[in-house]
Amino acid sequence: MKKSVDLNCDMGEGFGGWQLGDAPDIDIMKLISSANIATGFHAGDPNIMDRVVQLSSEYGVGLGAHPGYNDLQGFGRRFINASDEELVNDIVYQVGALREFGRRHGVPLQHVKLHGALYMEAAKNASLSRRILEVLAKTAPEAMIYCMAGSETEKAAADVNYPAVREFYADRDYDNSGSIVFTRQVGKLDPQKLADKCLRACKDGTVETVTGDIINIEFDSICFHSDAPSALDNGQMIRKTLIANGITITTPSISITK
Amino acid sequence: MKKSVDLNCDMGEGFGGWQLGDAPDIDIMKLISSANIATGFHAGDPNIMDRVVQLSSEYGVGLGAHPGYNDLQGFGRRFINASDEELVNDIVYQVGALREFGRRHGVPLQHVKLHGALYMEAAKNASLSRRILEVLAKTAPEAMIYCMAGSETEKAAADVNYPAVREFYADRDYDNSGSIVFTRQVGKLDPQKLADKCLRACKDGTVETVTGDIINIEFDSICFHSDAPSALDNGQMIRKTLIANGITITTPSISITK
Amino acid sequence: MKKSVDLNCDMGEGFGGWQLGDAPDIDIMKLISSANIATGFHAGDPNIMDRVVQLSSEYGVGLGAHPGYNDLQGFGRRFINASDEELVNDIVYQVGALREFGRRHGVPLQHVKLHGALYMEAAKNASLSRRILEVLAKTAPEAMIYCMAGSETEKAAADVNYPAVREFYADRDYDNSGSIVFTRQVGKLDPQKLADKCLRACKDGTVETVTGDIINIEFDSICFHSDAPSALDNGQMIRKTLIANGITITTPSISITK
Amino acid sequence: MKKSVDLNCDMGEGFGGWQLGDAPDIDIMKLISSANIATGFHAGDPNIMDRVVQLSSEYGVGLGAHPGYNDLQGFGRRFINASDEELVNDIVYQVGALREFGRRHGVPLQHVKLHGALYMEAAKNASLSRRILEVLAKTAPEAMIYCMAGSETEKAAADVNYPAVREFYADRDYDNSGSIVFTRQVGKLDPQKLADKCLRACKDGTVETVTGDIINIEFDSICFHSDAPSALDNGQMIRKTLIANGITITTPSISITK
Repeated sequence: MKKSVDLNCDMGEGFGGWQLGDAPDIDIMKLISSANIATGFHAGDPNIMDRVVQLSSEYGVGLGAHPGYNDLQGFGRRFINASDEELVNDIVYQVGALREFGRRHGVPLQHVKLHGALYMEAAKNASLSRRILEVLAKTAPEAMIYCMAGSETEKAAADVNYPAVREFYADRDYDNSGSIVFTRQVGKLDPQKLADKCLRACKDGTVETVTGDIINIEFDSICFHSDAPSALDNGQMIRKTLIANGITITTPSISITK
Repeated sequence: MKKSVDLNCDMGEGFGGWQLGDAPDIDIMKLISSANIATGFHAGDPNIMDRVVQLSSEYGVGLGAHPGYNDLQGFGRRFINASDEELVNDIVYQVGALREFGRRHGVPLQHVKLHGALYMEAAKNASLSRRILEVLAKTAPEAMIYCMAGSETEKAAADVNYPAVREFYADRDYDNSGSIVFTRQVGKLDPQKLADKCLRACKDGTVETVTGDIINIEFDSICFHSDAPSALDNGQMIRKTLIANGITITTPSISITK
Repeated sequence: MKKSVDLNCDMGEGFGGWQLGDAPDIDIMKLISSANIATGFHAGDPNIMDRVVQLSSEYGVGLGAHPGYNDLQGFGRRFINASDEELVNDIVYQVGALREFGRRHGVPLQHVKLHGALYMEAAKNASLSRRILEVLAKTAPEAMIYCMAGSETEKAAADVNYPAVREFYADRDYDNSGSIVFTRQVGKLDPQKLADKCLRACKDGTVETVTGDIINIEFDSICFHSDAPSALDNGQMIRKTLIANGITITTPSISITK
Repeated sequence: MKKSVDLNCDMGEGFGGWQLGDAPDIDIMKLISSANIATGFHAGDPNIMDRVVQLSSEYGVGLGAHPGYNDLQGFGRRFINASDEELVNDIVYQVGALREFGRRHGVPLQHVKLHGALYMEAAKNASLSRRILEVLAKTAPEAMIYCMAGSETEKAAADVNYPAVREFYADRDYDNSGSIVFTRQVGKLDPQKLADKCLRACKDGTVETVTGDIINIEFDSICFHSDAPSALDNGQMIRKTLIANGITITTPSISITK
């Protein structure tokens, strides 16, 4: 039974005059404790980043860099066969860019969360995760990495003593291995069902899989997506339900374990 | 008569597999005291930035961010009618990206120098320069801004008490107003003539203009360009000539004046 | 009194997963006779272009290339100080890309309409318009150029005997010189007012300006914008009102005059 | 024994102010019968394309579109996990852009050759090759596709009755399966050795592999790369040697077989 949990959401995923999803950034920002802010390679641009970082400062939301593959057209959802070193450099670049807006608005970097296909690739690629964590341990020792429980990213973080925040995905389905079932298109979801799923995960540490089985799940943060059709409703219902059940929503306080 | 002067050069101006000019970065890095490193919008990419920042760390060269207009094809040499706020955000983004590579290689940000058309626009645009300096005073209070003597950029720096480093251009011609004569294409130059021009500027504080007149010039740093056809020769001859005349080449130590 | 008029709209102005405005392309396509399709530099990507060109083929809508400045973040609304030759090459590139999708879906190129800041720059820049029209006369002699009445673009078209289609802007305000009052942000408009404005322009050849004066206006095509908040309503009301008053909506049949 | 052979080279592989390799386009153009011109996604920009297409027109060189993955930083050498439809649309876009410059300079599209990682992916991906060829058969029925003998691309071309030109790689090593040994970095090569290798391939239809074995090889065109360190020497020696041995260098005249 958790007494508190982090609630994180991808933010600032527009570009230029385009925005993703219908939920205004400011409305989402009021619900969450941690924001993963797109850093310009798969979405986001300097103007959007500035605005969203300012919002995260105003609402006391933990500031996270959300770097992705350099693929604006594909929204970072297409694997690119780049070398580990190329990807590490892409991440350093994007984290630095985001951090500078934090400096402007007086909010420190709290965490890094990889985006889309890069998140998925790192999850299964031990060599890549290791290089990323080695560099983050040097460039961002005060921050944390968000990842899937059991992923190579989590293992690499443990190997270099870097704090890892394990995520629970409110709006993604799980299979019996505890992995999320990846899908490019997410239809409209029932906010109350999502909230109940999160509550059960917090209270019992379990989740129902796509086959109807119940499995154990470990996590430190709940993630929902701002580009889902009912994103704002989802976030509001999750927040309301957790709080009504005595669970505080707050930034993660992770101790490095091994 | 100067006893010491800063020598700066634009660096890392390739992109992907392309490089600009024939001079290897490492050879230039041995000559200079300050490097202006392209930050990905007009040139440079994360891999190049990482390599050049590492070089600047190894050779003890002052680390400078060299942000430009977001125009890779035009190499940042084409004016873009963006708002002050858009440009400030572009600069924050690029400075942060560069600074993070400095963090990786243990070298702090020394300065910011605008690139190409953005440098020229800020030089004459008081409103833009003012906004840039206000933000740099907040995000990078420990750094300096490189600019032209008499430019709006220098004035804005003075207005917000931000240290300004005035440049002398070794490989550009001056008119009688003390402005450089802008040209997109620079032909092969005589390294000894350039070095003599720099020496005279350091010793007498004067420069010969395109009309043959002699004018006074104030500066704290000498700039030469790495993409000039004879760049390496230019840099070597400037360094050799100054040192032979008792002038030390070292990073600028600027006091804020008003 | 016009018996028929062309109705054109900018289309395919999304990028990757982002779309601009709420109006689905297919709904707009049912209303118009000519589509200006974004060609990838300021908006649009190959997947969007393919889909929109297919729609224009299905609905018998005239196919137009809508090239802009190479500025995805700025949506082509920021002037870039590129040379005439650079811009001509950008236009050739984009027109060719669009035309190839037309080839795929069996629909010939009908027209070219410059986008945003490039449209406005060409309107007042005689040298640029002349170079563009000279090249279009060679590369796309079977097509037409959309432009403002009285613009340098129209004059250049006349000079090289290239067919020009003069536009009337349903959702833009006019000043007393007959120029549109440029604005980056357009608020919600009253569809019936827009439709009445178009009807008056078609019947009387006049428009009411921002100061309440009535001026004469010449045009061959009515333009409305798909990214306006009430775009679909605007288009539907314009179409309905014109047809109800006996005015047919059809592609322009322009004869080269002068 | 061949009496004539096509000689092709990748051209226009710079971007903005950057160029790739030391060989001027005009010098290469004098040597070859077919040019594969970069179309802006992995290299090339509208200005470069215009200049190179004009050169191909002046020298009577067959005009080829050389589309690649949308990855300027990676020079199209990194696999991107895009769908077949996305890649087909990317190719249609790029072919059209190139073709329009051909229209400007009075030279028709002769062929399409995929670039880098896209060439290699299509070679082994039957589904992708099939979709590409189906679309080319519709949009560019008058052109040809360059490919490796035995590749899925060649098979797909045969399946849809589209003319395929099989390549022999002068500056790449072969393994015993007849595949080229892919490498990102090519060192300086001996032009005479390359020329002898080409001559033997033309006369005997054989090539020596990296293990010293002799295998049979079928091809219609010899390819050399303009970014190799000794590119100009390579091309000149190949041309000279072939001509000295009575082999004419000319565009391919392919009949559709099977």
